Amino acid sequence: MQKNKRDNKINPLKYISEIEPYVPGKPIKELERELGIKGSIKLASNENPLGPSQKALKALHDFLYNGSELSRYPDGSGFYLKSAISEKIGISAEDIILGNGSNELIDIAVRTFMGIGDEAVMAKPSFIVYSMATKSVGAIPIEVPLIDYRHNLMAMADAITEKTKIVFIANPNNPTGTINKRDEFERFLEKIPNGILIVIDEAYYEYVMDPEYPDTIKYLMDGRDVLILRTFSKAYGLAGLRIGYGIASRDIIREMNKVRNPFNTNTLAQLSAMNALTDNEHLKKTIEINEQGKEFLYRELESIKIKYIPTEANFIYMLLDIESKIIYQALLKKGVIVRPVGPKEIRVTIGLPEENNRFIEALKVVINSLSN
Amino acid sequence: MQKNKRDNKINPLKYISEIEPYVPGKPIKELERELGIKGSIKLASNENPLGPSQKALKALHDFLYNGSELSRYPDGSGFYLKSAISEKIGISAEDIILGNGSNELIDIAVRTFMGIGDEAVMAKPSFIVYSMATKSVGAIPIEVPLIDYRHNLMAMADAITEKTKIVFIANPNNPTGTINKRDEFERFLEKIPNGILIVIDEAYYEYVMDPEYPDTIKYLMDGRDVLILRTFSKAYGLAGLRIGYGIASRDIIREMNKVRNPFNTNTLAQLSAMNALTDNEHLKKTIEINEQGKEFLYRELESIKIKYIPTEANFIYMLLDIESKIIYQALLKKGVIVRPVGPKEIRVTIGLPEENNRFIEALKVVINSLSN
Repeated sequence: MQKNKRDNKINPLKYISEIEPYVPGKPIKELERELGIKGSIKLASNENPLGPSQKALKALHDFLYNGSELSRYPDGSGFYLKSAISEKIGISAEDIILGNGSNELIDIAVRTFMGIGDEAVMAKPSFIVYSMATKSVGAIPIEVPLIDYRHNLMAMADAITEKTKIVFIANPNNPTGTINKRDEFERFLEKIPNGILIVIDEAYYEYVMDPEYPDTIKYLMDGRDVLILRTFSKAYGLAGLRIGYGIASRDIIREMNKVRNPFNTNTLAQLSAMNALTDNEHLKKTIEINEQGKEFLYRELESIKIKYIPTEANFIYMLLDIESKIIYQALLKKGVIVRPVGPKEIRVTIGLPEENNRFIEALKVVINSLSN
Repeated sequence: MQKNKRDNKINPLKYISEIEPYVPGKPIKELERELGIKGSIKLASNENPLGPSQKALKALHDFLYNGSELSRYPDGSGFYLKSAISEKIGISAEDIILGNGSNELIDIAVRTFMGIGDEAVMAKPSFIVYSMATKSVGAIPIEVPLIDYRHNLMAMADAITEKTKIVFIANPNNPTGTINKRDEFERFLEKIPNGILIVIDEAYYEYVMDPEYPDTIKYLMDGRDVLILRTFSKAYGLAGLRIGYGIASRDIIREMNKVRNPFNTNTLAQLSAMNALTDNEHLKKTIEINEQGKEFLYRELESIKIKYIPTEANFIYMLLDIESKIIYQALLKKGVIVRPVGPKEIRVTIGLPEENNRFIEALKVVINSLSN
């Protein structure tokens, strides 16, 4: 072929070029330098304020004692971690896939099952990655508004067409912290035609207190086409290392493994996750501190008449009378980082007692000064 | 939509179902248990036998001293690592993208620029991931045989059609360890029409001794559509942590960032890579031990009349008279793990002096017993 016969520019796929460019945020240290502040607290990403399990940290220390093994590729089969998960949840290792965070598993599921013009049904607002992943393969996100801040499962079932390949359900939902309960979940499943993958994102699984939270592994055992996603980034406190897992039938897992890079999860992630999984003490403390923080924040928010949605996760969705971006900026200047998630809505991670307190105090000052 | 109106099964995309299922290998520890051996040496994955830089390890130890920060998400912008790379190679941070290993960047490039029915031109044999990534989006790998164990760049240029979106060049090539030199590389570039992405995989960049190795960053500066891939998994000894980077025009990087997961590279990978990058002593020692091992292996292979291809990397491609899978199995039983890469070809990583010696001794015994 002759040079220059094409147009000059290198072109991404059309559906990629149509995605909004990604504007990365700066690290907190850089942000602090620019604002001239110090010691800010981060309540923006639903991380575990206690940090990771000490058992996991000890395993990392031991591994790094001489560290020479770090030059070896990770175990691409995730043998030991999958065995540990398998033992914990009672599902065969063949029905488990590991991801570089559960975020990567969303991508892998999409790339395995959806192409150009296919549709994925999801809630709005929900975790933003469902829609981004869907667009990244040229498929179409069909967004169904929440009802009472929860997934409107019946409307989502009705939104299914011949083109639907995946339904995404975040349970608990992010950013609202609500769940869909067993009864309505099972009525929803009844309405779903075969051949559609139901991705149930349970990133906040460990925090749920409601006894009517659906046991989705049961649906898998019943032969339903579900892919259940869990993560070590939230309650297990390992967000920095990127590790999550998916549970599905081995047919689904086998196909997803064709898209997965063999070395997608790193050695230290596998090692620390395996150890975190059996540290019940850390998990218990994590839940306790979350429950305490939840009660404190509910009480304080009520006392200053801020509307919030009761949460089943480690964050609270708050509805304000002021633009969320303005509140966000004002809190930021006071060294409290939260997440604006709607025109007048913010999402605040439940932190340590002193962090929750600092947030409330900052919020009071900010609201007062903005209301005047 | 009514239930059960579709066929019963959940179907992956047609081009995914056509990919061979992935059969994960077992960890070495499990393999040893099955074979009843111990203390085997791994010369199969071109890892740095010296391990990672002590400077990188120290940074990890310091970070993990209390470890609580590990529960925070990584810096999605890779600010500090990109700044360090930028300083080292003299390219703006905007022209750099970080990957979960350069392997992930191959995937991201493919997903950004290629779709169903498009073509990618690559050498055969070369790094297997080019073809896997290509197939994972329904595109077609066009494989051009090597000439004298090197990429046949002129034939690759001739293989370009209207459908070609990407050309993959591994320089040095894996598994042969050969390079394409500046002159022929530039003649090749002359023949490439605009609008085609040339992915130049320089995973073994640091090991190259040949003064005629092309300076590909120059081609980027000249405005060519190149994506240069480098990694911390080889000379930098950080394969276990998964970190690599790509260098290209900011237009290309911006589009690739739309496909990249914001938290694709983990905190410890970013931190250790940043520190490894400035540890010149470790890099120097790495190259030295590789050169010594190379000379030793050349001499020994010649003395037992085994044909090999002189290498510009940290591995040697050997041509045998016996089936490579048989040699592989026989060496494995002696605790020496190598990689069969063709019917009668194996690829052996250059290790520490004692590892190289053990490989040669095992090879002599194996060849003797198989020849009788």
